[in-house]
Amino acid sequence: MGSNLARNLASREGNTVAVFNRSPERTRTLVTEHPEAGFVAAESYDEFVASLATPRTAIIMVQAGRGTDAVISELVSRFEPGDIIVDGGNANFHDTIRREGEISPTGIHFVGTGISGGEEGALNGPSIMPGGTAESYETLGPILETIAARAPEDGAPCVTHVGTDGAGHFVKMVHNGIEYADMQLIAEAYDLIRQGTGKTPAEIADIFAEWNTGELESYLIEITAEVLRQVDAETGAPLVDVILDSAGAKGTGAWTVQNALDLGVPVSGIAEAVFARSLSSQRAQREAAASLPGPDGGWAVADADAFIEDVRQALYASKIIAYSQGFDEIIAGAAQFGWDVKKGDIARIWRAGCIIRARFLNRIADAYAEDPELLALVVAPYFRDAVAGAQQAWRRVVVAAAQAGIPAPAFSSSLAYYDGLRAERLPAALVQGQRDFFGAHTYQRVDKPGVFHTLWSGDRSEIETTPSSH
Amino acid sequence: MGSNLARNLASREGNTVAVFNRSPERTRTLVTEHPEAGFVAAESYDEFVASLATPRTAIIMVQAGRGTDAVISELVSRFEPGDIIVDGGNANFHDTIRREGEISPTGIHFVGTGISGGEEGALNGPSIMPGGTAESYETLGPILETIAARAPEDGAPCVTHVGTDGAGHFVKMVHNGIEYADMQLIAEAYDLIRQGTGKTPAEIADIFAEWNTGELESYLIEITAEVLRQVDAETGAPLVDVILDSAGAKGTGAWTVQNALDLGVPVSGIAEAVFARSLSSQRAQREAAASLPGPDGGWAVADADAFIEDVRQALYASKIIAYSQGFDEIIAGAAQFGWDVKKGDIARIWRAGCIIRARFLNRIADAYAEDPELLALVVAPYFRDAVAGAQQAWRRVVVAAAQAGIPAPAFSSSLAYYDGLRAERLPAALVQGQRDFFGAHTYQRVDKPGVFHTLWSGDRSEIETTPSSH
Repeated sequence: MGSNLARNLASREGNTVAVFNRSPERTRTLVTEHPEAGFVAAESYDEFVASLATPRTAIIMVQAGRGTDAVISELVSRFEPGDIIVDGGNANFHDTIRREGEISPTGIHFVGTGISGGEEGALNGPSIMPGGTAESYETLGPILETIAARAPEDGAPCVTHVGTDGAGHFVKMVHNGIEYADMQLIAEAYDLIRQGTGKTPAEIADIFAEWNTGELESYLIEITAEVLRQVDAETGAPLVDVILDSAGAKGTGAWTVQNALDLGVPVSGIAEAVFARSLSSQRAQREAAASLPGPDGGWAVADADAFIEDVRQALYASKIIAYSQGFDEIIAGAAQFGWDVKKGDIARIWRAGCIIRARFLNRIADAYAEDPELLALVVAPYFRDAVAGAQQAWRRVVVAAAQAGIPAPAFSSSLAYYDGLRAERLPAALVQGQRDFFGAHTYQRVDKPGVFHTLWSGDRSEIETTPSSH
Repeated sequence: MGSNLARNLASREGNTVAVFNRSPERTRTLVTEHPEAGFVAAESYDEFVASLATPRTAIIMVQAGRGTDAVISELVSRFEPGDIIVDGGNANFHDTIRREGEISPTGIHFVGTGISGGEEGALNGPSIMPGGTAESYETLGPILETIAARAPEDGAPCVTHVGTDGAGHFVKMVHNGIEYADMQLIAEAYDLIRQGTGKTPAEIADIFAEWNTGELESYLIEITAEVLRQVDAETGAPLVDVILDSAGAKGTGAWTVQNALDLGVPVSGIAEAVFARSLSSQRAQREAAASLPGPDGGWAVADADAFIEDVRQALYASKIIAYSQGFDEIIAGAAQFGWDVKKGDIARIWRAGCIIRARFLNRIADAYAEDPELLALVVAPYFRDAVAGAQQAWRRVVVAAAQAGIPAPAFSSSLAYYDGLRAERLPAALVQGQRDFFGAHTYQRVDKPGVFHTLWSGDRSEIETTPSSH
C-alpha cells in the first residue's frame, strides 16, 4: 500500500517523492519498476531526510505497532521544528494520541492519518482522514488533496482535517467498524436469498448488480456481485463455495467495539459483525455443534421475488442502523477526546476512495448539514422515512431467518436496536430494580429527581440516598 | 461490603479479625456496632500490621483502581516474605497480573480474588474466586472456606484456587458478564409477557415465582419476583413502573466483552446485554426516536399460557447460550494467560453465594466432569437435549418480538448465535472473498491446504500465496 501511495503522490503535478524502505532492495525494485514516478531513492534515513525540501513531510506506511515507533524515532531525531511526520497506517488512536503528545514538544508535527481504499485506493485515490494540528494541515492538506479520491457528485477531494491528535485514526477505526457491519449484512442477505430461494451465486450476483443501481449503490455491493460471479477454475464451482467459511479480522473492528464500550455507545450491529467472524473461525466448536437440531424440514420461500425485495429493504434499514451507531461513536469520541469533528465532512470524505463508499453517504452529509446537532442519524427525516418504508419487510426477513434456522445476527440485532431506541419504556427499569435488590445500586424515579434505594432486606420502604459507588 | 466480609470472617470459629479503614471513625463505628465480632481495631497501618499473626493475611476491600495500589503499597512496605495480601475488589485482571508481578519478587503473596454475592453474600457467605500462587492458597484456602457460601446440594464451600495471578479476577469478570446477560434475558421475558398478555407486574411476579421451582431456579429469578411484586408506597403503582428505565453499569460487563474481543471469543449475548443498558441510558436519543414507526396496531398473543411457556423455554435456551459463551471465554483466557482453570470447579463454586447462583450450575459441573475437554457447553448431552426441546418455542418468541416491535436483543442474538454455531456453511466465505477482493487478504480453500488469492484486478486467476499481513 505504501508503494502505491508513493506512486499516487509522484503522479500528481508538482510533487517529487523520495522513497525509503528498510530493505534497499525493495526501494530499488520500486524505483526501477516505476521510472515514470521519478522517485528519489534513499538508502538510509540520513539520505532520505536530506533529500526532502523543508518544511519536510514524510508519510510512514508500516505495520501498526512497535515498527511505527521505531521509524518515528529515526525521523524525529533528524527532523526540525515545523516538519511533518504522517503515520498513514492503521494505528490505534490511543497510540496516536500518545505519539503526538511525545513529539509535539519538539515542534515537529505528528499527524496520525487514516487512509482507506486498499491497494487500489492508495494508487488511484483513497479517502484520507488526517488528525494532528490545524497548523500541520495548512501544509499537509494541499498535498493530500492532490492524491485523495474525488467524490463523483461534486469532485470534492475526499480528505478533511478530522480533528486534533488521534481524531483521524479514531474516525478511520469507526469507518472499519461500519465496514464490518456492512459486509456482514451483505453476507446475511446473500445467505438468506440463497437458502430461501435456491438461486445460484451467479444469479445472486445479478441481484446484487441490480441493487447496485439503486439506493444501495456502493463499492461493497458492487464487489459482492463480482465475488459471487467468480467461478473457481480448478473445480468449476462458484468460488464462494470453494472458499473456507472462516472470516479473518485485523483488529480495527474489535477496537471499534471496545472503544464503544468505553464510551457507553451501543454499537450492537458492529459487535455482531465482529463476533460473526470470530464464530466462523471456531472450526472445532462448529464441527462439534454441526448436529445440533434446527427447525424440521427444509425451507423455501413462497414468493422468491417478494422475499428478495424484502431482503433488499432489510439490508438498507440495517445499514442505516450501522451508520447511525457508527456516527454515535464518532460523536461520543469527539466529546470525550475534545475533537471538533464535523460529521457532515466525515460523510463527505467517505463518498469515494474508501471501502464503505456509497451513494447514501450524500444523504448522511445532507442530514448533518440540515442539523449538525442531530441526535441520531436514524431520526433525520430522510432516514426516518427510509426505515419507515422498510421496517415491515425488515421484520419479515428477521422472522423468516428465525423460523428457518438461518443465522442473521446483524439483521436481527439491528432490528432489536431500532425497536429499543424507539421504545417508550424499556425493561431496563426491572434491571435497575434487580441491581438495587442485590447490590444496593440505587435507582432514579420517573416522577421526581433524586436517587433512591428500597430497603429490600429490611421493611422494604424506600429511602432517598446518594448514588452507589460500589 | 468490606465490613460485612469482616463480620463474616469474625463469626467463624478460630478467626480473630483486625480491621482498618482510612477513616478511624468508620473503624470505631464498625467495632462499636458489632461487639459480637470481637474486632481488633487498628487506627494506622503500623497498628494494623502489628496486630496480625504471622504469616499475615490482609484482605483489601476498596474501590478498584488507584486506591487499591495505594493500600497495597502501604502493606507491602510493612509485610514480610510469606505474608499474603488479598485484593477482594472488582479489579481488572490485567491490573492484578501487573500487581502480582510487581509484588512476587518481595516474597509476599498477592492474591487477586473475585468475591460475588453483594452485601448480603459478603455477610452470610459469598462465592470466592481467588487467583495467586498455589502456595498462597495453602494458607488462604482454609480461611476462605470458613466464610464461603456452601452449595445446598453437597455443602461444599464455594471457593477454589481458580489459577495463578489474575485468574480469579478474570473468572469473576466473566461471572459478571454472564450476570448481565442473565438479567437482560429476564428483563426481555418480563417485557414480552407484559406486552403480549397484558398481565400486571404482580401477576408476572407469580409467573417468575413459579418458574423458580423448575429448571430456571436461580437467585435472579427469585429476586425478579420480589422486585415485580413490590408496590411503590408513594403512588401505589408497581415499583417497576416508577423506576426510571435507564440501567447503570459498573464496567465488568464491558470488560468481559472487551476481553472476549481480544481473545476472539464471540460473546454476543453478553455484548447485547451490555449494549441494552447503554441504549437505555441514551435518554435524549430515545426521546428523539420515540416517534419512529413500529408495526401497525396493538399486540396481544392468542394464547397467553402457551406464550408464557414459550418465553420460559426461550429464556432457558438463551441462558444456556450465555453460559456457553462465558465458559468459552474462560477457556480462551486460561489458554492465553496460562491458567489451569478447572471449568467444573468454577461451575461448582457458582452454585451458591454469587448473583448467578442457579440450580443448573450442577448440570454445568456435571458436563465438565463427564468431558473436561468439552468443546462448547451447548453440545454437552444435557444442554443439547434442553435446547433441542426448547428451540421451537425460542423461535416463536423471537418471531413474536420482531413482529410486535418489542426489542429482544439478547433472545434474538442468542438464537442467531445458536444457528450460526450449528450451521454447516456460513456466509463468512463471502466475507473472505470480499476481503480478498479489496485488500488482498487471501483465503483458504475447502478442498486443499494452503493460502490463496485471486488476482481480482488482473486476469482473475488464483495464485497460492502467503497469508496477508496487512
